[in-house]
Amino acid sequence: MPAPKRSDAERNRAKILVVARAAFAEQDADVSMAEIARRAGIGMATLYRNFPGRRELLEALYADEVDGICAAAETIDAQTPGAALLAWLRQAFAFFASKHQVAALLLKQPGADDHFFNDNRSRVLAAGRPLLEAAQHSCEIRDDLSIEQVLDAIAAVAHVQRPSDYLEPILLTVLDGLRVSAGSA
Amino acid sequence: MPAPKRSDAERNRAKILVVARAAFAEQDADVSMAEIARRAGIGMATLYRNFPGRRELLEALYADEVDGICAAAETIDAQTPGAALLAWLRQAFAFFASKHQVAALLLKQPGADDHFFNDNRSRVLAAGRPLLEAAQHSCEIRDDLSIEQVLDAIAAVAHVQRPSDYLEPILLTVLDGLRVSAGSA
Repeated sequence: MPAPKRSDAERNRAKILVVARAAFAEQDADVSMAEIARRAGIGMATLYRNFPGRRELLEALYADEVDGICAAAETIDAQTPGAALLAWLRQAFAFFASKHQVAALLLKQPGADDHFFNDNRSRVLAAGRPLLEAAQHSCEIRDDLSIEQVLDAIAAVAHVQRPSDYLEPILLTVLDGLRVSAGSA
Repeated sequence: MPAPKRSDAERNRAKILVVARAAFAEQDADVSMAEIARRAGIGMATLYRNFPGRRELLEALYADEVDGICAAAETIDAQTPGAALLAWLRQAFAFFASKHQVAALLLKQPGADDHFFNDNRSRVLAAGRPLLEAAQHSCEIRDDLSIEQVLDAIAAVAHVQRPSDYLEPILLTVLDGLRVSAGSA
């Protein structure tokens, strides 16, 4: 019976990712694989069948978040192309703030490689580029920045080590600065 | 003859700082104290009388740059308080971009301490605060950010590891976003 088996496997994988995401977000992110299996209510064999090691698990978490931000770029609902871009950049900001921790853990793993980060960066850039181009085409968003520059600006703010209510007006400043109505300094 | 003697000492100190600033800005910042003395055309005894070690020399370079940005806040010449703030923030941006390297070297030195950085951070904040308050009072600059948030935003952009022509439109975006005319996202 391959169908129900696959569904079980999918459920397990999803459960592991939810538990692992919560575990790695804790103060002490040094959670063992055994502890993750325990919290997910599965055996070690099942955990390792899904993720041979800590690095693979962290990579899956990271790629999962990238999937989410890429999917958001295609489904975002807004009145104008400019509003769509700004709404998506808000989601990208939350993504950069959260991925920072997973990325930091991932970089400490043996075998962590640049290709992985570069591939995922390329995916986010590719997802955001049509949104930026549409918003620039409709003359709502300034046209002197590329999608790389826009996302680097958002990521730079997200990586400031301060609470979110401190960062919020800084993010607003950058988003306001992207609007064409802002004039030029 | 104390007067000429002091003048010699000042000249030597200034010469060492100029040479050291250039040396530490090079690709390979691992320049020896002996090499710095050689380039400054002074003896090792004179160098060590001014700066007992590498850490003291880096701290002097750093404090010297902080002096510069603080002095600029008092002498900036612009049409309006808003223009004065934005002009000063441009200088602060250049300062953050350059101090990054000295700070990175300084943090590697034994005995590098947080008090030193915190004291200097406080001095920059104190220098910029009256400029921001005046510009907010004249309704040119948005009033939902503190001087800490404004400078963190500028520093975040300065620390993105990209060439200055890449960063320039990002900096412009932040400066434009600070203007009240920018509306709100």
